[in-house]
Amino acid sequence: MGSPDFAAPGFSATTALLTDHYELTMLGSALADGTAARPCVFEVFARRLPDGRRYGVVAGTARALDAIADFRFTDAELAQLESTAVVDDATLAWLADYTFSGDIDGYPEGELYFPGSPLLTVRGTFAEAVVLETVLLSIFNHDSAIASAAARMSGAAHGRPIIEMGGRRTHEYAAVAAARASYLAGFATTSNLEAGRRYGIPTRGTVAHAFMLLHDSEEEAFRAQVAKMGADTTLLVDTYDITAGVETAVRVAGSELGAIRIDSGDVGVLARKAREQLDSLGAKDTRIVVSGDLDEHAIAALRAEPVDAYGVGTSVVTGSGAPTAGMVYKLVEVDGRPVAKRSTHKESRGGRKFALRRHRETGTAVEEVVYPATAAKPELGEHDRELQIPLVRDGVTVDGLPTLEDSRQRLRKALVSLPWEGLKLSHGEPAIPTVFL
Amino acid sequence: MGSPDFAAPGFSATTALLTDHYELTMLGSALADGTAARPCVFEVFARRLPDGRRYGVVAGTARALDAIADFRFTDAELAQLESTAVVDDATLAWLADYTFSGDIDGYPEGELYFPGSPLLTVRGTFAEAVVLETVLLSIFNHDSAIASAAARMSGAAHGRPIIEMGGRRTHEYAAVAAARASYLAGFATTSNLEAGRRYGIPTRGTVAHAFMLLHDSEEEAFRAQVAKMGADTTLLVDTYDITAGVETAVRVAGSELGAIRIDSGDVGVLARKAREQLDSLGAKDTRIVVSGDLDEHAIAALRAEPVDAYGVGTSVVTGSGAPTAGMVYKLVEVDGRPVAKRSTHKESRGGRKFALRRHRETGTAVEEVVYPATAAKPELGEHDRELQIPLVRDGVTVDGLPTLEDSRQRLRKALVSLPWEGLKLSHGEPAIPTVFL
Repeated sequence: MGSPDFAAPGFSATTALLTDHYELTMLGSALADGTAARPCVFEVFARRLPDGRRYGVVAGTARALDAIADFRFTDAELAQLESTAVVDDATLAWLADYTFSGDIDGYPEGELYFPGSPLLTVRGTFAEAVVLETVLLSIFNHDSAIASAAARMSGAAHGRPIIEMGGRRTHEYAAVAAARASYLAGFATTSNLEAGRRYGIPTRGTVAHAFMLLHDSEEEAFRAQVAKMGADTTLLVDTYDITAGVETAVRVAGSELGAIRIDSGDVGVLARKAREQLDSLGAKDTRIVVSGDLDEHAIAALRAEPVDAYGVGTSVVTGSGAPTAGMVYKLVEVDGRPVAKRSTHKESRGGRKFALRRHRETGTAVEEVVYPATAAKPELGEHDRELQIPLVRDGVTVDGLPTLEDSRQRLRKALVSLPWEGLKLSHGEPAIPTVFL
Repeated sequence: MGSPDFAAPGFSATTALLTDHYELTMLGSALADGTAARPCVFEVFARRLPDGRRYGVVAGTARALDAIADFRFTDAELAQLESTAVVDDATLAWLADYTFSGDIDGYPEGELYFPGSPLLTVRGTFAEAVVLETVLLSIFNHDSAIASAAARMSGAAHGRPIIEMGGRRTHEYAAVAAARASYLAGFATTSNLEAGRRYGIPTRGTVAHAFMLLHDSEEEAFRAQVAKMGADTTLLVDTYDITAGVETAVRVAGSELGAIRIDSGDVGVLARKAREQLDSLGAKDTRIVVSGDLDEHAIAALRAEPVDAYGVGTSVVTGSGAPTAGMVYKLVEVDGRPVAKRSTHKESRGGRKFALRRHRETGTAVEEVVYPATAAKPELGEHDRELQIPLVRDGVTVDGLPTLEDSRQRLRKALVSLPWEGLKLSHGEPAIPTVFL
């Protein structure tokens, strides 16, 4: 879970300025009047799921812990803050010594969450905890939005592999995190080479239409590709005429051809025709990969078609209609007292909270129980489980946190535990209710 | 327009792996069969605008040129590619020497674009140009999506300043680019400190509700803030009861109070009531800042209300319903011959193209004219202008490219040139037609 030890693009010496201005002006005022040292508890949660979604997937925890470890104000950051007069000298001096020294608990990555689930709890002084708000929310809001969308796609694909190929449709570093979140949510591979480097995710890719157009004919392009990559490659057959493309592909690569890819048109109809054609040409084991503006609904609609793998781009990196998870970072406790904003429509519950999920004997989830840390712990049934785990103690990330592969497995199991309505793609209510004790 | 000279978070030694796997496997095959050296032209364009949008705003050019300059394969990148067997030794050797040596022309940042506008033209060998596809599209698709949404908000705000405060709602580095794109599109300031450092954008911020809750009372919080920041600050008045909050704010800060902020509820109604109350308390110059889930429609709906500034978050960093601009990077010319994919529904036009925009004598734009580089240049009327400018020559970024401030001014003028229907927020057709000669 630690940072890789090489200087890669986007890896930062420090994450300290990925921060809203007001975090530091608040800090300055709180240092001046002495409230900065008050022990506080902040919680990350989502008031609601994106419109019609039935569950959310926690993602970003490992990246968030790395960002906290890298949250330091070096001379470069301090000089910037000084020259722009964001804070005064006393605050600069405090920031120069900043390292987070508190405790963090949270849902492990790959866990499901529902409205109000306390998916991260940060305890420390006001000063040390408030400045982390922006970067923590950026990471959780992005990564969880992508993982939540990707999990729906993985479910719709029903075991068929999905390759994430949306890097070009989102910010170049968001792309890397999106590849990670998609993989966590069950995607098989990614096209993103940086995600391969940072997270060890398997990367895949063959050719684009540009490769076809570069050559004097489709056949020459196929021959060049097969000569280089062998017959067990994926030939892109829809540059000119798909039927001719399939015929040429099998003629060039033989019946050992690994796969064909169809990237345009009505891919369901085209896949069926291509399957018949491939079979008639003796290429019975040649797989069919489809891509081109697929989302979870399009994937589901292709379930009956002879499709072996999906390439998904835009829809997954933009969260399929929900590009942000809507999580907030709320101060819930000061000096041991619960606190909460009392405005009309943004209800918050004060006080530190724990959470557990109740299940039937069959393993099906029944409800999310969120209860005050001050209350007696509700009795845990045999199939129930507590949801938070320790992540940071005295500023140090705890050892042995789940790996990306662990999180992938966790999500797979968690999705199986949902009531079946919870897996429907249509708009609906959260799959299980959140009960606040 | 060059990279800053400090090692800041997210600044990268190299951008080379922000790349789809298939760019490098295509390269490998093309190096093997000799086609890699063919002179090629790639164009970046959008087939269509996001659903119902009337114009797009070009943003990302400066970041894209920086990314090209940083596109190098150092030992770290080569080792990763070798260990994962993405390419063979000959390709690795070629990548080790990679620097882009071709020419790039494009629309300047802040220019408007329409369906088919050739907003970037990359000329070079197939090999050197194809590998840039992913990172260029990531940058243009993200930054242009944000700038296009932000421009609508700036228009709706009708001169009232907008602060961008959405960093927490998107990936932590996308946030920095989003602040830049919003500023380009007319936003006044940002909350994002890293955007302040990288791009010199003015940053602003005061306090969040956490600061209010940290204190034993609203009055204590206000006193702490005013003591630290002076009376000319913005007090957040909606933590408990807005009417009481406004009264306390003026009592604490006096009629010199800079501003109040309202972040929840029906901000139009609340702003009107707060204005009356402030006036009655003698705080006639105290401004009213509103925030909380504002988008261009909400901003427009507040035009008649006594609002002095807007804080905008989620909607701008997610492109207000269009989080990606849908731009593509297409091979249009090989060895001087036009090339184009011939599939049914993704029409492309082969051959390098230029573009100009025609205007009436009044300065109102009439049409976007896209014409083949091989054709005679259409006659330019007095009010017409050519749209591409040279960006890179022989691999070197040309001197004197527009600054961020220049681009901001360019967009302001370009928006004035649109027919008035083009500025409507409702769904519609592109503000001017694209004519292909």
